[in-house]
Amino acid sequence: MIGSIGAAAAAICIIICTAALQVESGGAEVKFKYEIKEFQVPLDHFSFLSNATFNIRYLYNDSFVDKKNAHTPIFFYTGNEGDIELFAQNTGFMWELAEKQRALLIFAEHRYYGKSLPFGASTFNASMPDHLAYFTVEQTLEDYAMLITFLRNDLPLPVVAFGGSYGGMLAAWFRMKYPHLVAGALAASAPILQFPGITDCDIFYRIVTSVFQNAYNSNCTTNIGRSWKTFETLGGTEAGKKQISDAFHLCNPIKNDADLKKFLDYIEEVYGNLAMVNYPYNSSFLAPLPAYPVRQVCFYLKDLHQNDADLLHAMASALAVYTNYTNSAKCLDISVNSNADESGWNVQTCNQMVMPFCSNGTDTMFRPSNWNFKEFSDKCYKDYRLTPKPYDIILRYGGRNIETATNIIFSNGLLDPWSGGGVLQAPNNKVDIIILPEGAHHLDLRHSDPADPPSVRDARNKEAAIIARWIQEF
Amino acid sequence: MIGSIGAAAAAICIIICTAALQVESGGAEVKFKYEIKEFQVPLDHFSFLSNATFNIRYLYNDSFVDKKNAHTPIFFYTGNEGDIELFAQNTGFMWELAEKQRALLIFAEHRYYGKSLPFGASTFNASMPDHLAYFTVEQTLEDYAMLITFLRNDLPLPVVAFGGSYGGMLAAWFRMKYPHLVAGALAASAPILQFPGITDCDIFYRIVTSVFQNAYNSNCTTNIGRSWKTFETLGGTEAGKKQISDAFHLCNPIKNDADLKKFLDYIEEVYGNLAMVNYPYNSSFLAPLPAYPVRQVCFYLKDLHQNDADLLHAMASALAVYTNYTNSAKCLDISVNSNADESGWNVQTCNQMVMPFCSNGTDTMFRPSNWNFKEFSDKCYKDYRLTPKPYDIILRYGGRNIETATNIIFSNGLLDPWSGGGVLQAPNNKVDIIILPEGAHHLDLRHSDPADPPSVRDARNKEAAIIARWIQEF
Repeated sequence: MIGSIGAAAAAICIIICTAALQVESGGAEVKFKYEIKEFQVPLDHFSFLSNATFNIRYLYNDSFVDKKNAHTPIFFYTGNEGDIELFAQNTGFMWELAEKQRALLIFAEHRYYGKSLPFGASTFNASMPDHLAYFTVEQTLEDYAMLITFLRNDLPLPVVAFGGSYGGMLAAWFRMKYPHLVAGALAASAPILQFPGITDCDIFYRIVTSVFQNAYNSNCTTNIGRSWKTFETLGGTEAGKKQISDAFHLCNPIKNDADLKKFLDYIEEVYGNLAMVNYPYNSSFLAPLPAYPVRQVCFYLKDLHQNDADLLHAMASALAVYTNYTNSAKCLDISVNSNADESGWNVQTCNQMVMPFCSNGTDTMFRPSNWNFKEFSDKCYKDYRLTPKPYDIILRYGGRNIETATNIIFSNGLLDPWSGGGVLQAPNNKVDIIILPEGAHHLDLRHSDPADPPSVRDARNKEAAIIARWIQEF
Repeated sequence: MIGSIGAAAAAICIIICTAALQVESGGAEVKFKYEIKEFQVPLDHFSFLSNATFNIRYLYNDSFVDKKNAHTPIFFYTGNEGDIELFAQNTGFMWELAEKQRALLIFAEHRYYGKSLPFGASTFNASMPDHLAYFTVEQTLEDYAMLITFLRNDLPLPVVAFGGSYGGMLAAWFRMKYPHLVAGALAASAPILQFPGITDCDIFYRIVTSVFQNAYNSNCTTNIGRSWKTFETLGGTEAGKKQISDAFHLCNPIKNDADLKKFLDYIEEVYGNLAMVNYPYNSSFLAPLPAYPVRQVCFYLKDLHQNDADLLHAMASALAVYTNYTNSAKCLDISVNSNADESGWNVQTCNQMVMPFCSNGTDTMFRPSNWNFKEFSDKCYKDYRLTPKPYDIILRYGGRNIETATNIIFSNGLLDPWSGGGVLQAPNNKVDIIILPEGAHHLDLRHSDPADPPSVRDARNKEAAIIARWIQEF
């Protein structure tokens, strides 16, 4: 289960990080220009143990700014798990809105990602546990608070925080904890409720299943649900292992149970990723994908297969939508499942970002799996010498008790499995909920595209109006 | 100036700590009974450097609780700089209100005070700088957040935070940062604005001066203002030094300039303390005091003195109101100016609680003094190996920008010099401001007394009504 948990959690990053490629390869002549700057922050904001500092990077674009305006808005992206340049290039909505609002654009890089490494090349050296000690949400929010204070330079400038996915969680929490520094926050696809005890651990897999169930016909999930038994049966013999390896064109054939488990973890992760990037237009992920890729996958699984061999071949065709859409791969290398650097996020799941995942094996198309915190925690200690604090986030940010939050937009696409941990009901009339029925993972933050469905365009219009009001009311 | 700054800041503690004696010596048969319990907290809530823990103490009284009520309110005192038992015994209003609201009473001891010492007897050993590293507001609020979470035990119990002085600051900040854990906060005499750049550094001394000016007649402050020159002139000669020492019955006569400076720092501190405890009834401080002690002091200074010797003797009589009201002291020992343990608070002024004090020497009755941060910071490093962060508090709690705060009562007595750093104007209609024209330092938190002026009784009634509403709305 650990593998799956890590995989699902890590996927938050994958989709954002690879989105960069998508825009760039999309053919649109969109240029994102910025200066790359550095800002010094304390290594530890919350103790007086040392005065050590390091630099975080931020991207700066003032090309839209009206120099005569004494109240220039600042649009501040609360960077998340990845190189900040990728986020800048993949949050086109901020650029479009900055032009309208004549805002200063800032994209702040999250500590421990990109080039904002507190201990340089040895940052992730787990044999130096102090190196990972300051890799927390609170330290990161303090970095942003200091940077905004510096950028405002004592001027009364309205700041709006933006973020997608984990970046959206940071944007929301930032507004909650530092309302004096940001007038409001757009938190897109931010699963702030995906924590122990406040959201069912099977919600992610249930949504993925639902997306697959509604993509073509219901045989899709029935076939996938049955496939685990097929893989198990075939995987029990040498001949079967070869049969699977051949059908999926594995670069490294399955030789033992451990290999089989890795393969199954891999395809389970693919399903989650597919649901997240179920975008309405062609996009790039680990490999290029068609519009609404889940529908394509399920097209190959439209007929119910009773026979193991038939099912195996249908599955192979279906998975190839994801693994080899362009027919350019000679074989499938399951050890490379992401262009993204997941090392940072994996650490965060082992300190504060403890998000339970499970499946009872009947309500979803996934294998049965329990959330085993002990096992998870032991692995975290083994890998990073970290003991996770699963209730840190709820203790500090309130879990479902966010009645006093104001000026936050929580937007969620219903095709996005992370929406299960999102805020879908407004706690009061100062928090706006925007639902995108056809939306996948923070589609609204991306650059406008002719293929955008109406709900995404509507969402962006609403978001723009609310943000304009925050700036005006400031 | 350092001495005076430290003295004025330290006085926050003095008045609270000694208030205990007052209640106990007041003759009222008030019994404060509680169980003393311990609660384990992480040494460092904000990094993953170590898993070290220690215990904080808290006082527990459930005698008022209606066991049939599923929504028992919890009244939670956010302990400040001192032994928690003293606060429990000197916050009579909480006990009175707990009886009415049938609330559970909790008084949490602030880390590094009383018996809540993370490193036991060596906690304040400055040669071990890691020992003082976790002595911050944020770590303390986290202690309280964890304790409340434990006490609520997943039940929907409304919690109200109470605090006076620095404890009031903590109560207010706690509501701002952890609104999901406390329904509201009564912040009595909480100078949350007494920080660099957002409040004039001479406000404290100006209010003290105003209290003295209005106590009897204006000759009082004129005499005190002139006295510095008198002390300087006399202090310039051996004979003059003796003259001062004799007039004030100093146990240790003034022998040099350093002694003279210490003496002047001492009396400057006395003026601040007098204004703070300018209570309407007899009370105990360093020595017993009459009701409205400033009036008594100024009575001895009602005539304008042109002559150094005359002024000196009038000053000596005036100061004796504070130093020897009962006529029991054989001599004045200026090295002992407080029963309170100031060691903790002095550390806090050297990390986050950087409160600038100054006087231009003309608008107040005090000596001219500049706020010299460099000098202050150097001393902090010398004493504790700490480099103060003067803008930490504003960065985190917003300074004057607290527009989004809700369910906080800021009460301030206008006779209290700390009111200059208090919140006297409501930032919105969800924050209540209560002004006590005749009130000294958090008089409203104390037990009802027949001598209470009407404004204090009114304040308590208003506070009770607002708190009842918070509980009902919860």
